[in-house]
Amino acid sequence: MRKNAFYAQSGGVTAVINASAAAVIETCRQHPDRIGTLYAGRNGILGALREELIDTSLESDESIAALKHTPGGAFGSCRHKLKDIDTHLAEYERIIEVFRAHDIGYFFYNGGGDSSDTTLKMSQVAEKMGYPLTCVGIPKTVDNDLPLTDCSPGFGSVAKYIATSVMEATLDIKSMCNSSTRIFVMEVMGRHAGWIAAAAGLAQSEQAELPDGAVGHAPQVILFPEVAFDEAAFLEKVQASVDRDGFCTVVVSEGVQNADGEFLAKSGLKDVFGHTQLGGVAPLIANLIKDRLGHRYHWAVADYLQRSARHIVSATDLEHAIAVGRHAVELALEGKNASMAIIVRESDEPYHWHVGDAPLSEIANVEKFMPDNFISSDGFGITAEAKRYLKPLIKGEAPPPFKDGLPSYVTLRNELVAKKLPNSFDI
Amino acid sequence: MRKNAFYAQSGGVTAVINASAAAVIETCRQHPDRIGTLYAGRNGILGALREELIDTSLESDESIAALKHTPGGAFGSCRHKLKDIDTHLAEYERIIEVFRAHDIGYFFYNGGGDSSDTTLKMSQVAEKMGYPLTCVGIPKTVDNDLPLTDCSPGFGSVAKYIATSVMEATLDIKSMCNSSTRIFVMEVMGRHAGWIAAAAGLAQSEQAELPDGAVGHAPQVILFPEVAFDEAAFLEKVQASVDRDGFCTVVVSEGVQNADGEFLAKSGLKDVFGHTQLGGVAPLIANLIKDRLGHRYHWAVADYLQRSARHIVSATDLEHAIAVGRHAVELALEGKNASMAIIVRESDEPYHWHVGDAPLSEIANVEKFMPDNFISSDGFGITAEAKRYLKPLIKGEAPPPFKDGLPSYVTLRNELVAKKLPNSFDI
Repeated sequence: MRKNAFYAQSGGVTAVINASAAAVIETCRQHPDRIGTLYAGRNGILGALREELIDTSLESDESIAALKHTPGGAFGSCRHKLKDIDTHLAEYERIIEVFRAHDIGYFFYNGGGDSSDTTLKMSQVAEKMGYPLTCVGIPKTVDNDLPLTDCSPGFGSVAKYIATSVMEATLDIKSMCNSSTRIFVMEVMGRHAGWIAAAAGLAQSEQAELPDGAVGHAPQVILFPEVAFDEAAFLEKVQASVDRDGFCTVVVSEGVQNADGEFLAKSGLKDVFGHTQLGGVAPLIANLIKDRLGHRYHWAVADYLQRSARHIVSATDLEHAIAVGRHAVELALEGKNASMAIIVRESDEPYHWHVGDAPLSEIANVEKFMPDNFISSDGFGITAEAKRYLKPLIKGEAPPPFKDGLPSYVTLRNELVAKKLPNSFDI
Repeated sequence: MRKNAFYAQSGGVTAVINASAAAVIETCRQHPDRIGTLYAGRNGILGALREELIDTSLESDESIAALKHTPGGAFGSCRHKLKDIDTHLAEYERIIEVFRAHDIGYFFYNGGGDSSDTTLKMSQVAEKMGYPLTCVGIPKTVDNDLPLTDCSPGFGSVAKYIATSVMEATLDIKSMCNSSTRIFVMEVMGRHAGWIAAAAGLAQSEQAELPDGAVGHAPQVILFPEVAFDEAAFLEKVQASVDRDGFCTVVVSEGVQNADGEFLAKSGLKDVFGHTQLGGVAPLIANLIKDRLGHRYHWAVADYLQRSARHIVSATDLEHAIAVGRHAVELALEGKNASMAIIVRESDEPYHWHVGDAPLSEIANVEKFMPDNFISSDGFGITAEAKRYLKPLIKGEAPPPFKDGLPSYVTLRNELVAKKLPNSFDI
């Protein structure tokens, strides 16, 4: 039976989410007997609610292939989370109504934890309403906090960007530290889980022994959301690093918390300095060091730059993103409803992996934090186990094509198909 | 007559200053009849004052070649500016004393405006003291504010990094703007001159007409140090961009000033919100927009990341850095004392250039600002003239070698030659 399909992007976008989209579209095109038109939701699930369906069949094969080297979300994403079925049934019913009008039998949702929950609920509502719909999730999150999958596409590229940037900035501060700046603080994403902060540890040398002042010591301090901020121990470690190396590179997760579980970025730490801060934990940490230890500092907040940096993606991450997109369609064609395509690791070195699947019921609403044995005993670094896990994920380069010195990114036509429903829907 | 040579790096480092160093060293090695050992100052001119001279002859040809793909300052830089000859003659005399002890007849100083001044003064003091010394400057500054040279090595790579990052982050925010963040503010370097901020304008499309919402409109607003911040006009332009495109990317120079010439980052603007800020004009601008227009925002401060990003240098910039390093040695061998190697542009498109030289007396203490005709009439963008100037400077890619997913950067041995002077020197 031939059915149309729906694909949407959800939550914060990544440098490789469009590669998953390209793989979904290309794989659907390879099955014209089973899958008719693939519609993409304009601005994620909002596109389904508003009946704003992008007709991907109008995009050329070349444009779709170019998505593999274009960051951001090509169809628009959204921060809209579908709420409880019991209290917000109307939203689910509206989506089924739109799907029915457009003969959609496949639902592909490309996102993180919240999206897994939405995909699972969609499968439940469809079943309850007797509407035949195969719902498959495609993992995506720079936070790397999805369970069951070995890693989440998007993370490996951020990890590569952060480790590279920390290496580069450290070479800079090491040059300057003798007569100027001694402290460099870099803030990275990760509200609850410290995976991105941990990736900065890959910049450290593998050598057991390093001479004083070696850049391979850096980052000397990593602050994880999983470890309560201990001001005294932190300052002691920073000063010891300056004494030994002449400088200290600090990587701080945006989600670092004090012992009471409050985000430092919003906590009472401001009172310590008498300052109120405008957002950003990096300047706060930098000021703390200046205030207590007297060192000159620089700080950086990479923000969107880290997750959109298509110019320095990990080839491994890109392969993962394509593989889960393709496998999601295969799972749908096999009738594996309420599942998610996942990455399964076979070995660390040499790195071998394959795609598999897991039930959404075991993924939705579960956050994967850094295991204890990935964080060093002093709480300020990563262990050999963490490096073994992280290293394969940043391997390989896959730069985009450049034109006149800048990356050549594609813009799709994104034409909406004509609406079939008479009514609009209040969101 | 065979003489030893001294080379030092000065001021903020760049992604390609080591490429100039490599070219100086390689060119010196090609003239063993004229140039003996090339000593590098450990931590810039401080190395001369402290008699801490790195013996570059102990570094292999491979290591020196690898400097061309290694960011930061391989010998250490410094923020120490030599002061007036009249009041601080002792410093100059100390340097001459060190140079005499090590038979140094060539002085190569790789830096920006302050360094040109130092190099010029060194030539004057040496002449006054009857010490034969050929002093040649090698331009380096991400700020691009040196006069006479068409551009300064280091700038083209920052320009490429900033334009690329703005393109990428804009694709991100455009994906999110329908239901979430609408404003992205990115702070860039450039305390007095807006060259780096201007480079962000290269991310804009060349097309005269663009549909609403096109990423090619971004950055819709650039704030230059050369244009006094006009809050009302700024907010109006931001809102108009959001109305037209759904989002607004703002690039702000760290050096942007209010009408009274105060840096916004340190100005009374804080009183407007009732906030005191911890440094960084990006969060301040983002908060202003939130406060007045109510839009959700993200902001980034690239800081050291922009000037150390060897992974995305401009091949043109790299060629410039190598060419001025090589030419500085040639100038010295020709006896062109008190000169600087410069880049001379022949044509914009196709881009043709050659190296030349200019007297340091016309370079020292002169800052090159953006010409008026490079800034658009509303003060928030760049003109076609600016683009014509900037475009060739970011052309070409020259990524470093990668190993295990990370750039492979070299660390030199940096062994100091034995001191010959009995006395140390208080700096």
